[in-house]
Amino acid sequence: MEEKIKKIRSMIRDVPDFPKKGILFKDITTALLDAQTLKLSVDCIYDVFKDKKIDYIAGIESRGFIYGMPLAYKFNCGFVPIRKPNKLPCEVISEEYDLEYGKDRIEIHKDALKKTDRILIVDDLLATGGTALAAINLIKKVANPVGISFVIELENLGGRQKLPQDVEVFSLVKY
Amino acid sequence: MEEKIKKIRSMIRDVPDFPKKGILFKDITTALLDAQTLKLSVDCIYDVFKDKKIDYIAGIESRGFIYGMPLAYKFNCGFVPIRKPNKLPCEVISEEYDLEYGKDRIEIHKDALKKTDRILIVDDLLATGGTALAAINLIKKVANPVGISFVIELENLGGRQKLPQDVEVFSLVKY
Repeated sequence: MEEKIKKIRSMIRDVPDFPKKGILFKDITTALLDAQTLKLSVDCIYDVFKDKKIDYIAGIESRGFIYGMPLAYKFNCGFVPIRKPNKLPCEVISEEYDLEYGKDRIEIHKDALKKTDRILIVDDLLATGGTALAAINLIKKVANPVGISFVIELENLGGRQKLPQDVEVFSLVKY
Repeated sequence: MEEKIKKIRSMIRDVPDFPKKGILFKDITTALLDAQTLKLSVDCIYDVFKDKKIDYIAGIESRGFIYGMPLAYKFNCGFVPIRKPNKLPCEVISEEYDLEYGKDRIEIHKDALKKTDRILIVDDLLATGGTALAAINLIKKVANPVGISFVIELENLGGRQKLPQDVEVFSLVKY
């Protein structure tokens, strides 16, 4: 596993001053462009959760779709999108969360899951943990979130400490 | 193939009056939720293009990511995101296109592809063809778009007729 993680880490690109001055952006597009790294990333997350009896993958819009869908394909399970407001066409359950300035909301179709379904939530980045916590709380309203996975974790932002103990948190590459 | 397409078609849900009154929305979330349909959809598109020597999958934000990434995983090739403006961190090439009211733009990283790369573009829906044509023109600036695939095609909107002859167009389910 350690060798694989090292390879994945080497394919993530640092971009200074994006989206604003002073921020060193971790760019995953280079890790997606390389076929071997793409496959490794999906397979490593799969290996961590393969014995957890996952019923569905829930991907958080939009970069959670990127890793969530090949994971659903690999798990041979269904996929449920967690979307920004007003994107889903049927009745939704929603969860609000705080941004630096103001609030945002994520939504899931009300009829998609049932309470006993075991869900793996997928996103690309664990930073302050606001979106991740909202996604866990959202899934708890309709199903059973057993795990949440990320490609990148920015440890100094303390996101992991915000997440509940009963959900397994896994990130491929830590900074 | 015909039986598989019939199964996929049966899992796409009609939602009346979304996003606005009078529109019958084709909802793919039900086709994603069902593990068998998800796998069938990806495998059918793969089968159509498997002998076309695809080097990369290009997915159009955000629902092109949904089907594009498991296709990249299945093809064992890299994935390149075509994104809305100002989302990609490095230097981009962009393509503008007309909306009903106003204009929009899609972007791709300038350094992602090379001219000889054979690209399969992936999106969920072929409607009027505006975004699809823009994506093809965008890829033509940096590489070789050999095909474009959709889950759903709304034939009466004539999108297919707008697309260039030298790109193979495939849609899973036609309405």
